[in-house]
Amino acid sequence: MAGNSFGTAFRFTTWGESHGIAIGAVVDGVPPRLPLSEADIQHFLDRRKPGQTRFTTQRREPDTVRILSGVFEGLTTGTPVSLMIENQDQRSKDYGDIARKFRPGHADYTYQEKYGIRDYRGGGRSSARETACRVAAGAIARKALGDGVTIRGALVQVGPHRIDRDRWDWGQVDANPFFCPDAEAAALWETYLDEVRKSGSSAGAVIEVVASGVPAGWGDPLYDKLDSDLARAMMTINAVKGVEIGDGFGAAELSGEANADEMRRNPDGSVHFLSNHAGGILGGISTGQDIVVRFAVKPTSSILTPRLTVDLDGNETEILTKGRHDPCVGIRAVPVGEAMMACVLADHMMRHRAQCGG
Amino acid sequence: MAGNSFGTAFRFTTWGESHGIAIGAVVDGVPPRLPLSEADIQHFLDRRKPGQTRFTTQRREPDTVRILSGVFEGLTTGTPVSLMIENQDQRSKDYGDIARKFRPGHADYTYQEKYGIRDYRGGGRSSARETACRVAAGAIARKALGDGVTIRGALVQVGPHRIDRDRWDWGQVDANPFFCPDAEAAALWETYLDEVRKSGSSAGAVIEVVASGVPAGWGDPLYDKLDSDLARAMMTINAVKGVEIGDGFGAAELSGEANADEMRRNPDGSVHFLSNHAGGILGGISTGQDIVVRFAVKPTSSILTPRLTVDLDGNETEILTKGRHDPCVGIRAVPVGEAMMACVLADHMMRHRAQCGG
Amino acid sequence: MAGNSFGTAFRFTTWGESHGIAIGAVVDGVPPRLPLSEADIQHFLDRRKPGQTRFTTQRREPDTVRILSGVFEGLTTGTPVSLMIENQDQRSKDYGDIARKFRPGHADYTYQEKYGIRDYRGGGRSSARETACRVAAGAIARKALGDGVTIRGALVQVGPHRIDRDRWDWGQVDANPFFCPDAEAAALWETYLDEVRKSGSSAGAVIEVVASGVPAGWGDPLYDKLDSDLARAMMTINAVKGVEIGDGFGAAELSGEANADEMRRNPDGSVHFLSNHAGGILGGISTGQDIVVRFAVKPTSSILTPRLTVDLDGNETEILTKGRHDPCVGIRAVPVGEAMMACVLADHMMRHRAQCGG
Amino acid sequence: MAGNSFGTAFRFTTWGESHGIAIGAVVDGVPPRLPLSEADIQHFLDRRKPGQTRFTTQRREPDTVRILSGVFEGLTTGTPVSLMIENQDQRSKDYGDIARKFRPGHADYTYQEKYGIRDYRGGGRSSARETACRVAAGAIARKALGDGVTIRGALVQVGPHRIDRDRWDWGQVDANPFFCPDAEAAALWETYLDEVRKSGSSAGAVIEVVASGVPAGWGDPLYDKLDSDLARAMMTINAVKGVEIGDGFGAAELSGEANADEMRRNPDGSVHFLSNHAGGILGGISTGQDIVVRFAVKPTSSILTPRLTVDLDGNETEILTKGRHDPCVGIRAVPVGEAMMACVLADHMMRHRAQCGG
Repeated sequence: MAGNSFGTAFRFTTWGESHGIAIGAVVDGVPPRLPLSEADIQHFLDRRKPGQTRFTTQRREPDTVRILSGVFEGLTTGTPVSLMIENQDQRSKDYGDIARKFRPGHADYTYQEKYGIRDYRGGGRSSARETACRVAAGAIARKALGDGVTIRGALVQVGPHRIDRDRWDWGQVDANPFFCPDAEAAALWETYLDEVRKSGSSAGAVIEVVASGVPAGWGDPLYDKLDSDLARAMMTINAVKGVEIGDGFGAAELSGEANADEMRRNPDGSVHFLSNHAGGILGGISTGQDIVVRFAVKPTSSILTPRLTVDLDGNETEILTKGRHDPCVGIRAVPVGEAMMACVLADHMMRHRAQCGG
Repeated sequence: MAGNSFGTAFRFTTWGESHGIAIGAVVDGVPPRLPLSEADIQHFLDRRKPGQTRFTTQRREPDTVRILSGVFEGLTTGTPVSLMIENQDQRSKDYGDIARKFRPGHADYTYQEKYGIRDYRGGGRSSARETACRVAAGAIARKALGDGVTIRGALVQVGPHRIDRDRWDWGQVDANPFFCPDAEAAALWETYLDEVRKSGSSAGAVIEVVASGVPAGWGDPLYDKLDSDLARAMMTINAVKGVEIGDGFGAAELSGEANADEMRRNPDGSVHFLSNHAGGILGGISTGQDIVVRFAVKPTSSILTPRLTVDLDGNETEILTKGRHDPCVGIRAVPVGEAMMACVLADHMMRHRAQCGG
Repeated sequence: MAGNSFGTAFRFTTWGESHGIAIGAVVDGVPPRLPLSEADIQHFLDRRKPGQTRFTTQRREPDTVRILSGVFEGLTTGTPVSLMIENQDQRSKDYGDIARKFRPGHADYTYQEKYGIRDYRGGGRSSARETACRVAAGAIARKALGDGVTIRGALVQVGPHRIDRDRWDWGQVDANPFFCPDAEAAALWETYLDEVRKSGSSAGAVIEVVASGVPAGWGDPLYDKLDSDLARAMMTINAVKGVEIGDGFGAAELSGEANADEMRRNPDGSVHFLSNHAGGILGGISTGQDIVVRFAVKPTSSILTPRLTVDLDGNETEILTKGRHDPCVGIRAVPVGEAMMACVLADHMMRHRAQCGG
Repeated sequence: MAGNSFGTAFRFTTWGESHGIAIGAVVDGVPPRLPLSEADIQHFLDRRKPGQTRFTTQRREPDTVRILSGVFEGLTTGTPVSLMIENQDQRSKDYGDIARKFRPGHADYTYQEKYGIRDYRGGGRSSARETACRVAAGAIARKALGDGVTIRGALVQVGPHRIDRDRWDWGQVDANPFFCPDAEAAALWETYLDEVRKSGSSAGAVIEVVASGVPAGWGDPLYDKLDSDLARAMMTINAVKGVEIGDGFGAAELSGEANADEMRRNPDGSVHFLSNHAGGILGGISTGQDIVVRFAVKPTSSILTPRLTVDLDGNETEILTKGRHDPCVGIRAVPVGEAMMACVLADHMMRHRAQCGG
């Protein structure tokens, strides 16, 4: 059933396959009179773009976005913004092997079982290429949120190697090929991922996204909580297997005393918290603190080591996936996670305004 | 904005406050001609009911459910099933302290900030009491799913203490007060939680829910994936801070080879997998394997140790939460997690039928 | 599939059967801090209540509403408002005839075909009794709209007899048993409907609902237009077969010149229209003029004259419907139409605020 | 708020402005493995295409549709079908007059009031040009419905001139420029509309759409009734001011006896009705008879006679709308009405399958 839309008030719908003519998104509910140009969106697409380092797929896509509607004389009009990115580098090749064999860890088998048909070229609809559309929608969501809200993401773990949080420096994130806030960890990852890449293997990763400047009051309990929408949002990203808010699974090991975020008064009468174990959300509603989300990405399923599988007829066989793949898809998931955070927040900003007029 | 409904084809809406007249749910989209009685629902409510052991709140609620509509001569009619549970044990008392002070870790502050008003009695709408409605809806979802699908939950961690998965025995789950599948862990937890309880503290927990018998093909990529809907579902449960599918965060540490669930042919021509790192979902669609979800619950925020906070006027103060509270809310989250799993699966069974006729 | 909810931002879900335990509604998305009491709602329910004159069904229902949630100390809290009306006068009787025979013009046959089961008692879910829930929801919608918006309905045609629009007097609407704004027409209808009633027949009607004070700008083109939502809203009311906005079908006979609502400037710089053929909506968005909707109600299908039909086994037979029925269901549709107008407007007020901040 | 989507299970979202780069639709929820080519869609677009006779706008648009996604090797894959139609004949001209003046009867004023900005070129988003996207979506809906369901539309009234229903001949519909089923009426309309056109005026119209072959059981009471969804669907079409099902407003004038559609048994045990006053829908659910919908279209608002209006600054002025306009927009609304009927029926076919498995 129709499942290719995300959001309620700020809502986008994506379409397109990895090796089809184009991919795109329709963003509906955009507030009117926001300045918006293709360059505004391109900036974020370029962060996600493949082929920029040896740690991402070597497919070369310019990912040039066109705005087809919803903008007039440089401003949004309140009508749907249609975005299109043409596919360029669909390397012409023999798809025979993946056409008939199910790649373990991929969606080949499940799409075939569900629909009785699949566009196997480059993974078709289930390819991570679709995430470019999310990044484009996220760029518009940031415009809707305005300058008061800042959304930043970082890679905090590659394979078993975590960053040292004491060395966290947002300034480092754009200074290495990993969106890593810890320069020492980035250096270690470089060595590690070179080995992974050369051995034809792949690695998983953990991404953290932080939103600052979100006022208290966004989120719609009980079933459209801010955290449940964020969990859903991140889990829709390809290869994501886990999501945490604030201390996440670590919270299960804390005592009630340790986990409590105590409150104090500011000189101006407003309040602040002495800690943020909750990740900026209580009862599904933002507290005014930083919103902190982490998600885990499994290792890329396309690897050069042969794996046991079956083919369309159910015959046992093996497959190894040649071609151009990210040794660690988690890297490019950073701008995607930021975009999903932006879309969830824009949606809840507007939803809050609907009910509470805020 | 309206956020108190869950699901699309199988959809429920809950209402009610902890210390109001009653709580309830309206379940819409129920398939017709399912046998349904109050006893069918009561069975599951009794598993979640408070006051049954010293490890859950001492509030004594019979949680007796009434079916007000949608059932005729013992069968569902396809019209909305309205369920109501009257509140009985709203201990008459002075709410003064929590009326004016924000309890750290609770939703007091955020409800006040969002709505400018809150029903503070027993936590009002944000109380875990609402989860009884989910359990009731889940009982109907199980009916819709039929006998082919089995959904079972278990507590796998309390505070820092995890079960030994090699000792997993579903038969143990109903033999201890913790829904624990490992008898040795249950014994240890008993000691541990007695200490926690006596010291006026609280503990977190991790719950695992497993669905067996789900056929391949359920789930609607890209934004209504089976796993993203499960993540959302679990994150809507009170105090949940993290959700994992299959290996979850552990997958980030595996190599691509180790993470691949290889496939083999069965004698009858169907296929099976040699492992289930994916937790039964690939590309957002069920594989036919067990669906495995875990979620982390933070320690109960209501504790007897005083914590720093502010009051409605912004004045600095302290609060300690007397009253009847679960020392570990994670315990009673087990039947709630099962219920949410059932509702997500019933919804996707029906959604799959809509598009693919299966 | 789940179809018992109406609205997006202001959303209600109804449940209950004509001869079940109770009927009710859950109203979600209600703005917080609105004063709301049961008396506020009862006022509107009493206008729709059966058994008040000889022109409506003689079923005697007090239609006493209870608020079960969502209100605290006299104010809405932003959480769901659950409303319940217990059924009292389900006259105990033998339902044998309608249990097995399909009443022409009723939903008996279609419910049986769709669901394979139906609660035949008093029409079950398809009974007009459900409209009490809409009236209750509408009372809350009026609170959300505030005093600036006035919604009034009137009966403008009974059978073939129309009012004289030149005699329109809103003051008359509550002075006769028909909600008729034309005292002369009301007198004529009284005679006419007495004949209809005595002959065991029934009559159709046309209702007009007018909203004043709606600002320009509400409505979400292209598929959630204000007029398309109103058309949907009115067509969900039992027995409605047609809906018009402004001049409606009459507009098809006008020339482009005659149909144009010309605009002029007010002294204060704002604008006004010289006519209102459009019924206050252009391009799906309110113009600031009165919103004018009309809808046609077919004659009550329950009549004393025998009609040809078949039974559950497909055998040919006859049926005549004894019992307590409205000779003209259109009369009691007036407060229902007002309520649906209120709900659509409250929804669009909030939706407009979400996107445009207005 | 996001309002550019229609449908639930079968769902389309449209985008684009009259004089922008392109217009398009994303159709989501399409059943998999349907044969679908651009030619299948083009066939219906060509029926709606402007510039084919002197009775429609002289704008010359080839309306060539491209399928950008969702089809693989000639079959739908169950993923979103993205359709795009490039705008070709956006005659370069000075838009000055409509840029600053509000055309009476158009959406200029309301878009400006709602959004504070509008793309005035050719009516922007509110142009009837968008209906090409609906026709394209409708072509896919017909594929989903299969050959068992036939959907046909006809023009039954132009200005004050109605057809003679006794002369109804579906074979005539494609034999005149009006989709008129009555050859004599078509001849009369030709004369009438030539006069209207030459005088710079415009005329309204009434369209009737009939669906045959719909089984009993589709429709989701109480708020997603088949008739309420059809009413909404037709009212979203530009310039529509009224919608009727079956006898519609005429039903208000019938007696209960006359309005009853009596039932009889067929030799094979199934049943039939002796009349169809209900238009194939009872209680919001299809009866198995023809579904009959009529809708009224107001006269084109763009006329050559000057009308009083105001400009953006509120100054009083006049406007006359030169350019290429349909003297009777109702004509081209016929294929649009058919398309909306197809989309509503495909949606409800799938929705019925979800809940009832039918």
